[in-house]
Amino acid sequence: MEWGVCVRLEEEVVIMAGPCAVESEEQVIKTAKAVKESGADILRGGAFKPSTSPYHFRGLGKEGLELIALAKKETGLPVITEVMRPEDVELVAQYADILQIGARNMQNFPLLDEVGRIDKPVMLKRGLSAPIQEWLLSAEYILSQGNEKVILCERGIRTFETMTRNTMDVNAIPLIKKLSHLPIIADPSHGTGKWYLVTPVALASIAAGADGIMVEVHPDPDRALKDGPQSLTFENFEEMMARASIIAEAVGRRLKGRKERAKK
Amino acid sequence: MEWGVCVRLEEEVVIMAGPCAVESEEQVIKTAKAVKESGADILRGGAFKPSTSPYHFRGLGKEGLELIALAKKETGLPVITEVMRPEDVELVAQYADILQIGARNMQNFPLLDEVGRIDKPVMLKRGLSAPIQEWLLSAEYILSQGNEKVILCERGIRTFETMTRNTMDVNAIPLIKKLSHLPIIADPSHGTGKWYLVTPVALASIAAGADGIMVEVHPDPDRALKDGPQSLTFENFEEMMARASIIAEAVGRRLKGRKERAKK
Amino acid sequence: MEWGVCVRLEEEVVIMAGPCAVESEEQVIKTAKAVKESGADILRGGAFKPSTSPYHFRGLGKEGLELIALAKKETGLPVITEVMRPEDVELVAQYADILQIGARNMQNFPLLDEVGRIDKPVMLKRGLSAPIQEWLLSAEYILSQGNEKVILCERGIRTFETMTRNTMDVNAIPLIKKLSHLPIIADPSHGTGKWYLVTPVALASIAAGADGIMVEVHPDPDRALKDGPQSLTFENFEEMMARASIIAEAVGRRLKGRKERAKK
Amino acid sequence: MEWGVCVRLEEEVVIMAGPCAVESEEQVIKTAKAVKESGADILRGGAFKPSTSPYHFRGLGKEGLELIALAKKETGLPVITEVMRPEDVELVAQYADILQIGARNMQNFPLLDEVGRIDKPVMLKRGLSAPIQEWLLSAEYILSQGNEKVILCERGIRTFETMTRNTMDVNAIPLIKKLSHLPIIADPSHGTGKWYLVTPVALASIAAGADGIMVEVHPDPDRALKDGPQSLTFENFEEMMARASIIAEAVGRRLKGRKERAKK
Repeated sequence: MEWGVCVRLEEEVVIMAGPCAVESEEQVIKTAKAVKESGADILRGGAFKPSTSPYHFRGLGKEGLELIALAKKETGLPVITEVMRPEDVELVAQYADILQIGARNMQNFPLLDEVGRIDKPVMLKRGLSAPIQEWLLSAEYILSQGNEKVILCERGIRTFETMTRNTMDVNAIPLIKKLSHLPIIADPSHGTGKWYLVTPVALASIAAGADGIMVEVHPDPDRALKDGPQSLTFENFEEMMARASIIAEAVGRRLKGRKERAKK
Repeated sequence: MEWGVCVRLEEEVVIMAGPCAVESEEQVIKTAKAVKESGADILRGGAFKPSTSPYHFRGLGKEGLELIALAKKETGLPVITEVMRPEDVELVAQYADILQIGARNMQNFPLLDEVGRIDKPVMLKRGLSAPIQEWLLSAEYILSQGNEKVILCERGIRTFETMTRNTMDVNAIPLIKKLSHLPIIADPSHGTGKWYLVTPVALASIAAGADGIMVEVHPDPDRALKDGPQSLTFENFEEMMARASIIAEAVGRRLKGRKERAKK
Repeated sequence: MEWGVCVRLEEEVVIMAGPCAVESEEQVIKTAKAVKESGADILRGGAFKPSTSPYHFRGLGKEGLELIALAKKETGLPVITEVMRPEDVELVAQYADILQIGARNMQNFPLLDEVGRIDKPVMLKRGLSAPIQEWLLSAEYILSQGNEKVILCERGIRTFETMTRNTMDVNAIPLIKKLSHLPIIADPSHGTGKWYLVTPVALASIAAGADGIMVEVHPDPDRALKDGPQSLTFENFEEMMARASIIAEAVGRRLKGRKERAKK
Repeated sequence: MEWGVCVRLEEEVVIMAGPCAVESEEQVIKTAKAVKESGADILRGGAFKPSTSPYHFRGLGKEGLELIALAKKETGLPVITEVMRPEDVELVAQYADILQIGARNMQNFPLLDEVGRIDKPVMLKRGLSAPIQEWLLSAEYILSQGNEKVILCERGIRTFETMTRNTMDVNAIPLIKKLSHLPIIADPSHGTGKWYLVTPVALASIAAGADGIMVEVHPDPDRALKDGPQSLTFENFEEMMARASIIAEAVGRRLKGRKERAKK
C-alpha cells in the first residue's frame, strides 16, 4: 500500500476502523474522531451496504458518501468504503481513498473489471467460500485491467462452526505473503462476528504477518443498524490498539498512527 | 413456472439443456436441434460467462445472444441465458425468455433489484456457500421489487469433498418444496462436475421432487471452451431423457417435451 | 451383499429399518413387526449408542442386544446393530447378522482391524467430514484383514447448512458405484435429520443407484429417546415403502421384501 | 495444566515438540535433545499412529513407547503420546506423562470413558469437523468420569480450502478461554500442514491466548515416515522458539523452558 494517501513503510501495520454502516452525521464524525484519537490510519464506513434481506438496512447511499466525506474533512483521515455496482465506481471513487469490494462480490467480475480501470487502491475481500486460488484470480481481474493497487482482505470463511459468524482463516495470511506481493489486511470483526473475539484475533493476525487490520467501531453497538454484535466500543478499540501496538513491535513492525499519537 | 412461454402444468418436469457457453452458430444450432429432438423444453446457453480467471473464455457477449436467438428461431425452443450486470438486464431480456442469475451473483443485490423490475421469469441459482435461508432472502429481493416469476435452482454447494466439483444438495429440493411456493430446478452438471454422474443425479433430483432439470450438452465435450468435463454428448443426453422420463412417471409427473415427441 | 442371511440378487434394493435405539421389548418388537409388514428386509436397532453428550441416553448395552435378538426371533428378520469398541466385536457378532461401524468411528482404526477379522458383513458409515477417498481407505482396513463383506453407507456430511442436520451427498452414490465393487446403502434419516425429508431423499438415493436404504422407524417418534425428529412413524414408513417400490422398478430393481409381501 | 510433571504457572506458555512418529532410537533421542536445547517443555512422539491408509506406517507400538521413555530418561522431558484403544490406556499411561486423544477419536466415547478413569492429564484434540460445542461435550466425557486434568488442543478443521491441509481455527482459542476453564493448546503443524506456515500460525495462536503450542520437529523432514511436509527442522524450531518467546512476552506470558535456558 504505497499509493496516494495510503503510502506506508513496509514495517507499518495499517489500522482501518469505523462503523459498519454510516448512519448519521453525529455517528460517523464521533466515531472518526475516536478512532483517530486511538491511532487509526483510515476511516471505514459503508454507504452502500449489502444486506442478506431486502427488508433490512441497505445503507444511506450517496448521502452516506457525503457524511463520510465530512468525517474525512473533520479528521483528516483517508476513507475506505464499499462499491457494489459497476456504474457506481466513478461516484464512489470521488469520495473514497480506497474502494472496497465486499466478500459477496469477490466474483462479481464486471465490478472487478470496472475497479481495474480506476487509479485508486481497491481492497478485495475474500469470498465466504473462496479458495485462496480463486481469490488471487479475482485480484488478477483488477490487476489485468491496469490497476496495480490491490489490497487483499481476509475476513473469515464459511464453515460448519456456528458459534462464530465465520471462521477467520489465519493460515491465509502467511500463505498470501508467500504466494503474492499484495498487502494483506485482516478483518476480525467479520472473521469472528463477536466483539469479544475481535481483539485476540486482531493480535493473532498481526502476529501471523498481516499488513493491517480492519475493525468495526460504533459509539453504541447495541443500537447499531448493522453488525452491532461484532462492533467495538471506543473503549474496546482503544484497548485493542494498545495491545496491537505491542504485538506489532514484537514482530518488528509498528502502528503508524499510534506512534504519532504517542509522540504528542 | 406458468409465465409466458414457460407455462406448464404442475405435473410437468421441465428440461433445460444446451451448451455451457455459446461458442459458434454451428455449435449452438446443432445442440439446440439435438436437445429438442430428445425432448428438451428450453434451450440454455451462456453469452456472458463468469470465469474464475480473467484469462479464460468469458463468453461471446452480444454476439452470443444473437446466436442463441438464431437457435431459438430455428427450433422454436424458448431460451434461458445468464445476465451478470444490472445494466445488461434490458439487453438480455430482449433475447431471453428466462434470465439466469448465476451462483456467484446470488448476493449481487443491485442485480437482483434490477431483474426484480422486469416482467420475465428469473432463475436464481443457489450460491456456492449459501444457506437455504439466504437463498430464499435473495429470491425475496426479486419478489419484493414486483417480479413474482422467480425459479430457484440448486446447483451444488462447496464442501470439503474434492472428487466432485460441488456437492449436490438433494435435501434442498424437498425442503424448498416445504418452505416456498417457488419452483425448484436441479442442475446436476454443476452439482457434480462429472458427466458420468449427471444422469444418476438428475434422476435423483426428479425422484426428490424437482420441478425441472438443467443440464449442459455439447456436440464435442472434449473440445468445449467451458465445462467440457461435466457436459453430456447428444447420445448421453438422449439416454438421460429416456431414463428421466421413466422416473418422472414413477413420481406421478411427466417430461412435457418427451411426451410430445413420443406422440409423433 | 451376498453373504449369509444377506444374500440378495443384484437387482434387489435392501431396506433396513427400525428404531435408532432399542428402548424396550415392546418398542423393538412392535417396530420389527411393523417394518416387516411393510416389507423391510433387515431390522436395525442400536444397543451401544454413540451420544454427543455423556449425560444423554447411551443405549441399553447387552440388554439391548438381547431385545433385538428377541425381535429377530419373533419376526425372522436378520438384524444390524452398531459396535463401538474392539473388545465388543465378538459379543455383538453373536447377536448381529451385520455389524455397523458408525460415522464417528470411520477412522477408529483398531475397531476397523477387529471387524476385519470376523466372518460377518460389516456396514461402514461415512464419517461426517470424510472425503470419499478416506472412506474407501477405511473400508480397505477391513478388507485387508480378510473380511470381504464390507457394505458402505452414505449418511450425510457436515456442511455450513443448518436447516438440515447433515447434507446427504447423493453424488457419492454413483461415484462409489464407479470406484468400487462394494454395495452402497443410503441413510436418509441421518442424511437429512428431518422426518419429512426422509422419503424424498430415500427415493432420490434409489434413483441414483443405491443398493439399499436404512431408515429410522419408531412407534412414537415424539417420545423417542434418540433421533425422534428424524424417525418415521409406521404409517410414514409404509408410505415410503410404497413409493420406494415404484422408484426401484423405474430403475430396473425391486424391493425384495415388498415383492414377497405383495405376493401374499 | 497444574498436574504432576505438568505444573505451570498461569503466565507460562507450554511448548510440546518432537517427531510425529517415533521411528528409531537415534531419531527420537536426537530430536528430544534438540527441542530441549531450544526450550521445549514436553516431548511429543507417536508410538500408536492413526493412518488414513492401512498400507502406511502405523507406528512402532510398544517398542515406540520404550524409545520415547528412553528419550525422557536422557533429557528429563516429560512426554505426551497418543492412545487409540481403550485397552491400551493402562499400558500407555505407564510411559506417558500426558495421554493424547487424536482428532479422529474425539468422539470415540469408550476411549474417552477409559481415559476419564485414570489419574493423568489427557489432551483432547478437536475433531476435524467438530463444532466447539461437541468438542466441549467430549471433554465432559472425561471430566464426568472423574479425571479433571483435561487439556484441549485446536489442530485445524476441515474446510473447502485445499492449499492448506486443514484450516487452523484461531477463533476457537479465545472462545474456549471464554467458555471453559480448561487450558487450550494450538497445533499449527496439523493446523496448516505446511512447515513454512507453522511459525507464523504458532505466533498467532500465542497472541490469541493459547496456553501452549504443540509442533512436529524432525531431524530430516524429507525422510520422515509421517507428516514430513509439516515438520520443522531443528533450525526452524529454534527460530520459532526465539520468535514465540517475544510474542509470549508481548501478551504478558513467557516460555518456561526458554527462560530457564536463557538464564544459563
